[in-house]
Amino acid sequence: MFATLETLETPAAILDEARMQRNILRMQGRMDTLGVRLRPHIKTSKCLQVIEAQMAAGALGVTVSTLKEAEYCFANGIADVLYAVAMAPGKLPQALALKRQGCRLGIITDSVSGAQAIVDFGQKHDEHFEVWIEIDSDGHRSGLKVNDPALLQVAQVLYGGGMQLVGVMTHAGSSYEMHSLQALQALAEQERFTCVAAAQAIRAAGLPCPQVSVGSTPTALSALNLEGVTEVRAGVYVFFDLVMHNIGVCQPEEMALSVLTTIIGHQVEKGWVITDSGWMAMSRDRGTQKQNRDFAYGQVCTIEGDCIQGALLGGVNQEHGIITFEPELGLDLAALFPIGSRLRILPNHACATGAQFPHYHACDTSGQVRTWSRLNGW
Amino acid sequence: MFATLETLETPAAILDEARMQRNILRMQGRMDTLGVRLRPHIKTSKCLQVIEAQMAAGALGVTVSTLKEAEYCFANGIADVLYAVAMAPGKLPQALALKRQGCRLGIITDSVSGAQAIVDFGQKHDEHFEVWIEIDSDGHRSGLKVNDPALLQVAQVLYGGGMQLVGVMTHAGSSYEMHSLQALQALAEQERFTCVAAAQAIRAAGLPCPQVSVGSTPTALSALNLEGVTEVRAGVYVFFDLVMHNIGVCQPEEMALSVLTTIIGHQVEKGWVITDSGWMAMSRDRGTQKQNRDFAYGQVCTIEGDCIQGALLGGVNQEHGIITFEPELGLDLAALFPIGSRLRILPNHACATGAQFPHYHACDTSGQVRTWSRLNGW
Repeated sequence: MFATLETLETPAAILDEARMQRNILRMQGRMDTLGVRLRPHIKTSKCLQVIEAQMAAGALGVTVSTLKEAEYCFANGIADVLYAVAMAPGKLPQALALKRQGCRLGIITDSVSGAQAIVDFGQKHDEHFEVWIEIDSDGHRSGLKVNDPALLQVAQVLYGGGMQLVGVMTHAGSSYEMHSLQALQALAEQERFTCVAAAQAIRAAGLPCPQVSVGSTPTALSALNLEGVTEVRAGVYVFFDLVMHNIGVCQPEEMALSVLTTIIGHQVEKGWVITDSGWMAMSRDRGTQKQNRDFAYGQVCTIEGDCIQGALLGGVNQEHGIITFEPELGLDLAALFPIGSRLRILPNHACATGAQFPHYHACDTSGQVRTWSRLNGW
Repeated sequence: MFATLETLETPAAILDEARMQRNILRMQGRMDTLGVRLRPHIKTSKCLQVIEAQMAAGALGVTVSTLKEAEYCFANGIADVLYAVAMAPGKLPQALALKRQGCRLGIITDSVSGAQAIVDFGQKHDEHFEVWIEIDSDGHRSGLKVNDPALLQVAQVLYGGGMQLVGVMTHAGSSYEMHSLQALQALAEQERFTCVAAAQAIRAAGLPCPQVSVGSTPTALSALNLEGVTEVRAGVYVFFDLVMHNIGVCQPEEMALSVLTTIIGHQVEKGWVITDSGWMAMSRDRGTQKQNRDFAYGQVCTIEGDCIQGALLGGVNQEHGIITFEPELGLDLAALFPIGSRLRILPNHACATGAQFPHYHACDTSGQVRTWSRLNGW
């Protein structure tokens, strides 16, 4: 007897494999058309089966958010890895160990001090690290502005210090605050233009800068032109979620990750159905709170995955979820949603919800469920 | 060479063992004075060393939020376990297995339908489950109101069906919305009074109800009188956090859990210091958002654990944190907080932040750090 959605222990993270495959092909097809490599950010899934599906579709290398993810990918045969968080000096020994094992690990920096720490450590250990310079294309978080004099200083420190100056990279994270195609197209162009300009400035100074890497799921799915860009990084597209839906780049029917939950009680006069999917399962992510449509802690669906209009996971405690209905609807909640029956919840943010689970349960069209483990921690 | 706060990989969950011990003794001392048993809720730590410290101080039994926690406690010699989430029928086989191994597992229900499912399963397997009825003492979440006719029906279904009617239990979760001692004292009395009244109603109907269990950290630390109550459940007091501070039951100097983080960059003109403690480390919990004082994603401290006034973890992405300073302060952030240096962040919600980590690093006054693993998942 194999596990099904009716027999799995709940809460459980369910992956719809067919939807995931369609999402992978959609992004890969776009990048193929635009003529750039795709380097998926595997922080969303942290799961080998998912990463392998992305590589099989044509991805060249991966992006990671921790060195543990880099070690996981390299141990599973993926040697081209970009660690896309500014390198902390204390993590250089871990990066060195990966390089010495044969991993083609790229690391990033956005400061003279950070670059100097890489050079000092690299020279001490006779290692020519492959370094990318992070560019700030939208004021979102990290990176050097293209007109900051530190940009060429960092490039000079790295190159002069014997490191491999691989290229420039940026992430237009402010794309998460948008919700129109026009705005996304403009931001994608700004992301491209700024990063290419940074590469040109470095090259004009007589330094090498062969690679130009940009990306976020919303800009990657909106860009009309990627001239001068060599690769795109994107992560959450593989599963999609309610935040991406509000931004306008996916429909609920494309969301591949949901949380399977069991009904454990009711407060009928309040219009509440109590579930075993609290914040421990959903995460505390409220990414849709500031968007056009607030989905509270998630959109409630039938066990088959069809959205139940008007049913949101309105509140969560650690292991309790509260699905809220308008009391005026006069629904017989105890009869419609009996204790022990099951539902699925679409999350606000797939990266955050996935991280609450030690494994996914992947289901295909046969109804059979397989367990795919995922990485967590550091 | 042993690990220290200067050498640990970051981000890391740091437990201050002396603070934790003081928190344990404070709560246990209060319960001893009030003449009730303490049954700590171990969902906060999910860590054997922490639970053992609570038991050593005088706790009698534990409360859990998942059956996996129950299995963990029982495997480690703790046999008296209350699973304080309404029993889903699909989880009864797991509860039965624990009972058959000798665990004194208590389960709860708050509906006739839930009670009937327990009876049906218990009778089928000749198991007299120990069942508690959940009471709603403040409209917060689950439970039966004391005047709901279903209360006696549930008691009758359980008792008539051969289950052991152990008692009534409630959790005044609305205590998290308060911030004055007077309001907390009033709610603690309401929690006590309501649960005792429910027990009296069951006894008046000729049914057994020996135990009366109440609790939340804020009400447990505020109650003046627990007459009629036999045991108290509380969880987060063992670590405390910024939400508890805003409620008024602890000071920052009592918080035992913090996240060790490394500085990886700056955006000086914005007053930003970038760290490697994103939401993956802190959790997405924004529990102080609706309280009197909003601590964003956490209060920044020195590596020694002293609060840096005015420094909050203002923003987080998956593996990036942004510490925000008022630009008007004119601080030389790159010099004050150089790349590679370390800080600690006090979290909004210790249960949520702890859950992001596979283990804690416990530090004692010697400066030595030991690794304590914790449970996650279901």
